[in-house]
Amino acid sequence: MSRMKYKASGVDINAGNEVVRRIRELARSTFTSGVLSEIGSFGGLFRPDLSSLADPVLVSSADGVGTKLKVAFRTGRHDTVGADLVNHCVNDILVQGATPLFFLDYLATGRLLPEVAVDVVAGLATACCENGCALIGGETAEMPGFYADGEYDLAGFIVGLVDRTRLVDGSGIRPGDRLIGLPSTGLHTNGYSLARQIIFDTLGLTPDATPDGLDGSVSDVLLRPHRSYLRVVEPVLSHAAGTIKGMAHITGGGLTDNLPRVLPAGTAAEIDRGTWTPPPVFSFLQDRGALSDAEAFRTFNMGVGMVVVCAAEATDALCSRFEQAGETGAVVIGTVTTGDGEVRYISGQ
Amino acid sequence: MSRMKYKASGVDINAGNEVVRRIRELARSTFTSGVLSEIGSFGGLFRPDLSSLADPVLVSSADGVGTKLKVAFRTGRHDTVGADLVNHCVNDILVQGATPLFFLDYLATGRLLPEVAVDVVAGLATACCENGCALIGGETAEMPGFYADGEYDLAGFIVGLVDRTRLVDGSGIRPGDRLIGLPSTGLHTNGYSLARQIIFDTLGLTPDATPDGLDGSVSDVLLRPHRSYLRVVEPVLSHAAGTIKGMAHITGGGLTDNLPRVLPAGTAAEIDRGTWTPPPVFSFLQDRGALSDAEAFRTFNMGVGMVVVCAAEATDALCSRFEQAGETGAVVIGTVTTGDGEVRYISGQ
Repeated sequence: MSRMKYKASGVDINAGNEVVRRIRELARSTFTSGVLSEIGSFGGLFRPDLSSLADPVLVSSADGVGTKLKVAFRTGRHDTVGADLVNHCVNDILVQGATPLFFLDYLATGRLLPEVAVDVVAGLATACCENGCALIGGETAEMPGFYADGEYDLAGFIVGLVDRTRLVDGSGIRPGDRLIGLPSTGLHTNGYSLARQIIFDTLGLTPDATPDGLDGSVSDVLLRPHRSYLRVVEPVLSHAAGTIKGMAHITGGGLTDNLPRVLPAGTAAEIDRGTWTPPPVFSFLQDRGALSDAEAFRTFNMGVGMVVVCAAEATDALCSRFEQAGETGAVVIGTVTTGDGEVRYISGQ
Repeated sequence: MSRMKYKASGVDINAGNEVVRRIRELARSTFTSGVLSEIGSFGGLFRPDLSSLADPVLVSSADGVGTKLKVAFRTGRHDTVGADLVNHCVNDILVQGATPLFFLDYLATGRLLPEVAVDVVAGLATACCENGCALIGGETAEMPGFYADGEYDLAGFIVGLVDRTRLVDGSGIRPGDRLIGLPSTGLHTNGYSLARQIIFDTLGLTPDATPDGLDGSVSDVLLRPHRSYLRVVEPVLSHAAGTIKGMAHITGGGLTDNLPRVLPAGTAAEIDRGTWTPPPVFSFLQDRGALSDAEAFRTFNMGVGMVVVCAAEATDALCSRFEQAGETGAVVIGTVTTGDGEVRYISGQ
């Protein structure tokens, strides 16, 4: 792991050093009390506070931003994809009850554009700060012949911590439990190959177009960052342990593919599509792309970025807690039934 | 994090499921007693054994394979780059005294070739087993338009553990200390842009060529895996704590750029080039590529993949310990001097 590799990889030494300096500064701004090392040492050092944990379990995840990056390339805005990546990773460990400790990134380019690298890392750093997660390392690789000019790939790795007694694993989920949906801000980081095809190829829209049916310009809507649910879920995990039986982060595959990942054997899910109104981008894409409901619900999050499962009798208290944490959009979107892991959509009332 | 995304990303469902099944099987073969989760849950769960640690510190690193991947593409051999990545990451945390707990990978392609993905993960899994490191997760991203047909990028992320009292950080290094070099197997994962240019472009060699001066075919020599030093260094860390004052993993930038990363202020290094004989690939590249010594020592590891720093009086005992651990190639290659972090090369008899 090395930000030093900027220097060794053949880029202009002065430009490279300046990037290293600014990236170190950005990373340092995220440091929490657990961080023991500076960016640039071989490994990142983190000393977790284990004092309140009976049985500490590390929860980790790796992810990328996917083809949402192509929207960043097209618009020249590189300061939002960092938040996409960090928040995605935070949610992936949050669903098991873990809160983040630290994050590392992998940024691969054909030729390093210093100002782009700094924008990307600035986005990572801001999101890391918001999630109380230290950016303690990363690799920036220049790989001529791998990436087109001005393009890059970005991946992230997160490690969080949970007490084993507070691990959320869905095993207690029973038929009759309720599914509470937490609103997404838009596409988050999934379905971008299809969304770009519809918007740019089929409709021929430009990034600054503001077509009827979208609540903003194409670039604003498509680059809206993936939301972190840490701030609204963490208070419930801390103060009402056990209320949340399971959580599903709705990423690639939508509700259709992600809900089954938390449902125990013998259960299924029934979603009432009339219980929430998806943000405009979803009906826009479904309409203009002539997508079936099945396609749309298997490709996009359709306005629900996180699903929380709880006992029916805990629903009101849980929604109140979400409201206290600033989340006014939590709504019961369905019920756990008996079944074989399938997700059925109904349109009640 | 999801191996499930194979299913959601538009590849043939049956082929995708078969890949997921084989990858899970490979990952499961690496599981150590700390692993709590199966591949496919949102986050990977690891319960570290902290019983013998007074003050546990997590050491993490992110890295890629770099343009060595191009050699894999050219030769169609994809089962060695996994070892390159895992061993590189293991060494990056080993230099701070940490032993590995778990590993996650990021494999990004244009279109998933199932047999290639399985070969890559098989290489990761074998190396993880050899290093006692559990492969507990990863992301496989299909990103059409990012990668050329048949190409991919591969990054890895490792987390290890060390007791804070046993952290190796180089702070005790003093002028007069000795630099012990541990042999590399070849280029490891650095200098491949230059090496490929010399071998394929300048010399026009094919992967199966066996030119004079190389100890094997071009593909054998160029794909020789990056070596892990865990097996030979770990016994010293366990049984002779404190003997090792500092370590440097010799990666991009060679001895010239990596030794300074472990040298404290006011010190420098003097390397006697006559103390070891680099493997044939280095003289081959330097000769055919007409590289100056300065270029060669700043691009390639030149036969030294790891440098261990110890007090002069501890040298013999340390080399004996390495020998007991199976490392017969450990040799004193230089001395710590006063200075400003520079690496000087001399040729004493």
